[in-house]
Amino acid sequence: MKWYLDSGNEGDVVISSRIRLARNIKGFPFANLLTDEQSKKILALIKDAATGLNLRYLSMASMPEVNRRMLVERHIISPEMLRNTQRRAVLLSDDEQISVLLGEEDHIRIQCMTAGLDLWRALDLANKVDDVLEEKLDYGFDPRYGYKTCCPTNTGTGLRASCMLHLPALTASGYIETLLSSAAKLGMTVRGLYGEGSGAGGNMYQISNQITLGISESESVKRLEDLVKVVIEKERGMRDTLRRENDDKLVDMVSRSAGILKSACLLSSEEAYNLLSDVRLGINMGIIKDIPIEAVNELTITTGVAHIAELCSEDTPSSRDKKRAEIVKKRLIKH
Amino acid sequence: MKWYLDSGNEGDVVISSRIRLARNIKGFPFANLLTDEQSKKILALIKDAATGLNLRYLSMASMPEVNRRMLVERHIISPEMLRNTQRRAVLLSDDEQISVLLGEEDHIRIQCMTAGLDLWRALDLANKVDDVLEEKLDYGFDPRYGYKTCCPTNTGTGLRASCMLHLPALTASGYIETLLSSAAKLGMTVRGLYGEGSGAGGNMYQISNQITLGISESESVKRLEDLVKVVIEKERGMRDTLRRENDDKLVDMVSRSAGILKSACLLSSEEAYNLLSDVRLGINMGIIKDIPIEAVNELTITTGVAHIAELCSEDTPSSRDKKRAEIVKKRLIKH
Repeated sequence: MKWYLDSGNEGDVVISSRIRLARNIKGFPFANLLTDEQSKKILALIKDAATGLNLRYLSMASMPEVNRRMLVERHIISPEMLRNTQRRAVLLSDDEQISVLLGEEDHIRIQCMTAGLDLWRALDLANKVDDVLEEKLDYGFDPRYGYKTCCPTNTGTGLRASCMLHLPALTASGYIETLLSSAAKLGMTVRGLYGEGSGAGGNMYQISNQITLGISESESVKRLEDLVKVVIEKERGMRDTLRRENDDKLVDMVSRSAGILKSACLLSSEEAYNLLSDVRLGINMGIIKDIPIEAVNELTITTGVAHIAELCSEDTPSSRDKKRAEIVKKRLIKH
Repeated sequence: MKWYLDSGNEGDVVISSRIRLARNIKGFPFANLLTDEQSKKILALIKDAATGLNLRYLSMASMPEVNRRMLVERHIISPEMLRNTQRRAVLLSDDEQISVLLGEEDHIRIQCMTAGLDLWRALDLANKVDDVLEEKLDYGFDPRYGYKTCCPTNTGTGLRASCMLHLPALTASGYIETLLSSAAKLGMTVRGLYGEGSGAGGNMYQISNQITLGISESESVKRLEDLVKVVIEKERGMRDTLRRENDDKLVDMVSRSAGILKSACLLSSEEAYNLLSDVRLGINMGIIKDIPIEAVNELTITTGVAHIAELCSEDTPSSRDKKRAEIVKKRLIKH
């Protein structure tokens, strides 16, 4: 089963936890300066080192454009991976929990995702992958500065820990603004779901720890976890307040959103995403009882533009909107 | 059964037909100039004359305000009847097809309503009531000018024929504007559902023949009927065009409206009215199959502000909106 179908710890607020380790191979320039020759050699070296990890090797260049975009929608690869595809590949586990990006900003980016708040398990997993690769690869490492990375902000542990949070009540109350500026003071970054520069569609936010230098891996993860726990409590408190002060409106909003998802015959990806956010809130607050959270988790991914485009014979916005409405209705009405 | 639950001839476009006859009793001033004494006397005279018609006599003054407003919402009395209630009453048949307004602008206004396009049956019914009343009452009548009425625009036959039409496609296409100006040239008036000055909520329009002088009753009815038949064809043609050119959007709109009605937990009267209009269109175009038209006919009336207020223990807009959503959901989900 794909990891994202599940709900994990604190799943009412935390969608997923992710650990990313950036690594580069000694004796080669950083990815953007590699020759084609060197690039091929590096991909071969890593692929070989990964034998035994039971990961599928997917070359970006040999994959249709729509499938690459599906990987972005599933948070398996970064949008950056859509460019220079002949130099890039990904190693992927069947449950999609482990993905190793090759030839992106760094030679190697190990990513491990878990459902809910589960940073330590994600870290364990990432360390295991890292250990296996390190047996055969010689990483660029400086005794004083730690792992060498293309961008200096990753130097040190090369680790970035992040959590995806669903914060509809903090967003509705406007308290999210205070939270964003507090997070920045703690060296954390908060951004919308589809990466830097994107808005917080569907009330989804990614909180990540940017500090990699002068701090241990576990300290980095702990700091993020502590902040996330505070945010969880704030969000829950605000949901209680909404419920106490505005229950009728809240119940109305989430019920209508579920009703529209079940009845619409045309749905844009943005509208679907926002309605699914309302339904997620409704389920987590016990208002909606006839839709399982797994259906929302699944649809949040499978209603993405690329996922729908792959199912359409004709790839136009209106045929996608029609197909998306069909997929949603089918999933929500007979689950 | 109440007449309005039914759908009549050309029921896909024509909601109802109405004939109104204005009469005044000889030897009394017009209603606005009556003394209290005279007013009482007239009410008693008419009540007596109506014996045998099997109509209930409802004195406006002895009825709670909310019940009076319910009669307005059911098109039984005019909003004018809500004022000077001690001088006004209505005679009403059980099926609400016949209502005789006493003490409004004229001493007597006989109103007969039928479902769909059925002006001749409404005229027959009105004439029968008129004949019975005339046996005992002496009407003000001039051999040259016809029935004397308070407002000179009603002099002559004292008849006004009108039809209530549902014109969503003509409204959406903007063609309604052309129609309104053409109707005026033919001496017809077109207005929104709740009488003069009101907008056309829910795409409902009342078309009526204003000419009462120098024209026979049957000629007056015939002219209206002819115009209505033209409008029916135009509306149907425009619905076909919508279907041909914009089918997906149309299906989406009516399906969503049905979905919102079934799922909302707060519904204002205006929103409910507009959503019911969409659902009516959806049913009449064969798009919506799981909602009977009778449910829409019923809810169009029973979701009115006064009808809902009567069911609420606490009469505030938010408790009404909640009750309205309950009523709608109950009717549409288990019909």
